[in-house]
Amino acid sequence: KQNILIFVRNVWYFITKYREQHEKKVIHSIKFGTSLVLVSLLYLLDPLFKHVGESVVWALMTVVLIYDFFAGATLSKGLLRGIGTILGGGSGCLVALLAEDFGKNGYTAVIGTSVFVSGAVATYCRMIPSIKRKYDYGIMIFILTFSLVAVAGLRADKILELARQRLVTIGMGIAVCIITNLLIFPMWAGDELHTLTSLRFNKLASCIEECMEAYSSVRDNKGHLSININGCKSVLNSKSNDESLANFARWEPWHGKYGFSYPWDKYLQIGELLREVTSMIMPLQACITAPLQTSTTVHQPIKETCIKAGLSLGLTMRELGDSILNMRRVKEKVLIFPELQSIKLELTILPNLELQATENVEALAIANMLFILIEIVAKVKVLAKEVGELGEIADFESK
Amino acid sequence: KQNILIFVRNVWYFITKYREQHEKKVIHSIKFGTSLVLVSLLYLLDPLFKHVGESVVWALMTVVLIYDFFAGATLSKGLLRGIGTILGGGSGCLVALLAEDFGKNGYTAVIGTSVFVSGAVATYCRMIPSIKRKYDYGIMIFILTFSLVAVAGLRADKILELARQRLVTIGMGIAVCIITNLLIFPMWAGDELHTLTSLRFNKLASCIEECMEAYSSVRDNKGHLSININGCKSVLNSKSNDESLANFARWEPWHGKYGFSYPWDKYLQIGELLREVTSMIMPLQACITAPLQTSTTVHQPIKETCIKAGLSLGLTMRELGDSILNMRRVKEKVLIFPELQSIKLELTILPNLELQATENVEALAIANMLFILIEIVAKVKVLAKEVGELGEIADFESK
Repeated sequence: KQNILIFVRNVWYFITKYREQHEKKVIHSIKFGTSLVLVSLLYLLDPLFKHVGESVVWALMTVVLIYDFFAGATLSKGLLRGIGTILGGGSGCLVALLAEDFGKNGYTAVIGTSVFVSGAVATYCRMIPSIKRKYDYGIMIFILTFSLVAVAGLRADKILELARQRLVTIGMGIAVCIITNLLIFPMWAGDELHTLTSLRFNKLASCIEECMEAYSSVRDNKGHLSININGCKSVLNSKSNDESLANFARWEPWHGKYGFSYPWDKYLQIGELLREVTSMIMPLQACITAPLQTSTTVHQPIKETCIKAGLSLGLTMRELGDSILNMRRVKEKVLIFPELQSIKLELTILPNLELQATENVEALAIANMLFILIEIVAKVKVLAKEVGELGEIADFESK
Repeated sequence: KQNILIFVRNVWYFITKYREQHEKKVIHSIKFGTSLVLVSLLYLLDPLFKHVGESVVWALMTVVLIYDFFAGATLSKGLLRGIGTILGGGSGCLVALLAEDFGKNGYTAVIGTSVFVSGAVATYCRMIPSIKRKYDYGIMIFILTFSLVAVAGLRADKILELARQRLVTIGMGIAVCIITNLLIFPMWAGDELHTLTSLRFNKLASCIEECMEAYSSVRDNKGHLSININGCKSVLNSKSNDESLANFARWEPWHGKYGFSYPWDKYLQIGELLREVTSMIMPLQACITAPLQTSTTVHQPIKETCIKAGLSLGLTMRELGDSILNMRRVKEKVLIFPELQSIKLELTILPNLELQATENVEALAIANMLFILIEIVAKVKVLAKEVGELGEIADFESK
């Protein structure tokens, strides 16, 4: 009966999650379409067109290039685009003006050289990981604008007028993007990171509980022993996604529950710890489903303690996840640690009583499981401490 | 003394690796600068400029946007850009021609609607993971070109002439990129994936050997027991990088040792298995460095067998890695399997003889180590099979 309940809960979770994701994607698509139309109107309506002229293509291009799902991503790309354009355009103008003194052929040579050097240096910078992570887009725009302006300087009669028009239209494009993206149903990368992190605690809790359930029913039904480890694997592969979310989240202004300088780095640390816990849960599953486990017969005390430990770990993980999700301090902090401690003690004392009685292959599997559980308990303690610190830094409610 | 040797080897490896990476980056930067200058010449030199006109900005933009470090990435972006431009431009022209029948206001309405719909649909498609992975860039270019052409249709007198000029310049940009990127010191994503995968075998082999070394010196020196797990962690986080490399590698034409339809997917499968092996090595390290291990005293037979197993695993891993790196069939295939098998047998028999004699906390740690070693042996067997299959599919030398 409990299995059915869990199954129904999972299906329900899946549906709501899918609808939610779906809904967000549809909203994002509509928002993008809207900003594209708003910018197109600059071109389509005569009174607006008079002010900006042909440069309006730059506004369209800006919208297509910088519009992103997350508010933080759009904001950072918009700002980098603005800064890159101004710097690139400014230095392009300077080089073009300087080069004019060298005559026709000299001009070509100077511009060619400067384009080559700036392109090569900027590309090299783009390959340095720490710069790439933060300023990749800005540098690309810098090279683009610089070479466009420097190269076009020769043939443009009114270079300053052209530059002004382009800057204005790019600014308009950025403004449209930021307004539609941040003011209409904004999708915050910070929210996503926050929810994902807290959901991962639940995923791991389910994994541990599932393992223990499989272990307790190990004699009853052999075919049943397939533990779903996809949840765990997705946690293991979460690093790059987390990092980009945290990167965007840092750009997001004050919104909802998060103040300025919200400690997003702490989420990355917690994510790292979660991956470490996961890398301990994977062998736990391996050990329960291993063929060595086949001849499990009695050792009721070990089984009971293991199951108790699993349930307790699951509870603690859920508690920590809820604490993050609802942004309140870890409840009954005093209660969690001693409980984990006593389980650890129980686990370490157990083998003395029981292991001698069992056969050697089983003994291995059982001992392994006990050891891994102890390790997981230790990791979860570190995790609880880290979540507690997050609560302090981010000033969670202490109810 | 052996430690110094390992240290020197690591430093040397680091320097050569760094210089190699460095060199590639410098070459890439120079290549990029060169193609930027080549395209700029279209604008700077009068005879060339007459043919293409102002549209030359599109060539510059093409170079900046599609030039990438890997040949496969540049090729795929170039082709997607070409296809996206043609499709987007074509449908943009169609819509603009159809809309002309509706009068001035009708035109604005029709164009606005079509831009909105196409923008929203294309953005939605870009968020579907399987499409995003392969065609993201092409769809972006499609939206951009479609809206530019549809919107500009109203005011451009000679829309076909404009379209022709742009297509020609974009084609030139793509041609310059592909020529400089593929013909001058090309960096193949396939090569990178190939080398990275085989190096990972060595990394894991070093990890296992280091663990065993630490285990064998466990009594001599307590402070020494810090095992460097960064190599392992980098393997664990390799998934997304591998996937993008494989994605680029599929676009790369026949080159060097790789024929057409080289089985890059197999590399992803091997990568997945390597990550699974790594997730077993991590707890091995945890168990060796755990405080439980402190009171290790005698059990020489267990120690010897473990160390033998570790060395044997390390050798096998290196052998597999070399097999991939040098593209020859796994050497002495018959020899590897029986050896691993006998070790497995030895490991399973051991606890019977020894475990009873030891104290309970140690017993846990030792049993755990044995169990994990058995699991790793099983995984490595699967891995060896997979590498063997790769050798067959990719037709490695069978010398």
